[in-house]
Amino acid sequence: MPYIKLPESVPGMRSLLTAYSDTGQHLSAFAQQLLRGASSLSGAERELIAAKVSQVNHCKYCMHSHAQTARHLFSDDDNKIVEEVIFRNNDEALSEKMQTLIKIALAVQQSGLSVEQSHIDKARNAGADDKAIHDTVLISAAFCMFNRYVDGLATLTPDEPEDYVMMGKRLAESGYLK
Amino acid sequence: MPYIKLPESVPGMRSLLTAYSDTGQHLSAFAQQLLRGASSLSGAERELIAAKVSQVNHCKYCMHSHAQTARHLFSDDDNKIVEEVIFRNNDEALSEKMQTLIKIALAVQQSGLSVEQSHIDKARNAGADDKAIHDTVLISAAFCMFNRYVDGLATLTPDEPEDYVMMGKRLAESGYLK
Repeated sequence: MPYIKLPESVPGMRSLLTAYSDTGQHLSAFAQQLLRGASSLSGAERELIAAKVSQVNHCKYCMHSHAQTARHLFSDDDNKIVEEVIFRNNDEALSEKMQTLIKIALAVQQSGLSVEQSHIDKARNAGADDKAIHDTVLISAAFCMFNRYVDGLATLTPDEPEDYVMMGKRLAESGYLK
Repeated sequence: MPYIKLPESVPGMRSLLTAYSDTGQHLSAFAQQLLRGASSLSGAERELIAAKVSQVNHCKYCMHSHAQTARHLFSDDDNKIVEEVIFRNNDEALSEKMQTLIKIALAVQQSGLSVEQSHIDKARNAGADDKAIHDTVLISAAFCMFNRYVDGLATLTPDEPEDYVMMGKRLAESGYLK
């Protein structure tokens, strides 16, 4: 039961964006730019970072919805990349660049002050440019916000992973502005 | 020294909003709505929550800039309210409603899942409405993002509290869209 009045039967972030559209419109535009705008990281890679940070923050709604979105964007039909990275902490399927960026994202999840020059050096040596480093830090920071917003107001969270499959398909195909 | 190329001599969030205006424009519009838009909380109260969360996250840039903004909006010339709440953990100068909302903000700072029904009940009993509870949760969540963004990229952070006085005056008087 959410802590404030929200549209019934509408889950998670969607219920907040609908009921509080004054801030919601800017959050949607921000998410669209951050996760789908021009970047040296693919949409799939950015969604994977979002899902990983959400998993560490124990935000079930954001974790499942962005894991399904990443799965769709990776064309990861057997769910191998996402399953291994998010749920088994095994990043062998990823490029060295993505492995170093996920380490940056996990540092940011703890605190901005946990990021060290050595994290950045490793990412640059693996081919990450300024934009990739910027986007990784901001995606991790943003999901530290979204996760807290969704769970801090106890929004409706579907129980079954299957409930998120259509949501992931929609976010992958249509983005965050609808 | 910032981890990525940013405009020289431009501090903290401002350097990021300038160099990465594609996401920055949406973050500025979001901050303006969240901290200055219609709410049952005053701008001063919202800035105080922002500064308090930033202090707990050890984000010196955000803490000083929003503390100075709150001070200006409270007309707190002798810096008594802000000094006591932010730096001495003494909230006696605040209304009971604000005391309960700051407890919600501090729970959100730890995790969205740390907010309990009892936090909400106490805030409602002290007169907080849905909008006040919503805005408190979202402000705390948002500063968990802004703090990580600013520190995760090691942006320029002025050392002296005095450096933030003009910044606070500007944010208090002109808001986040300039």
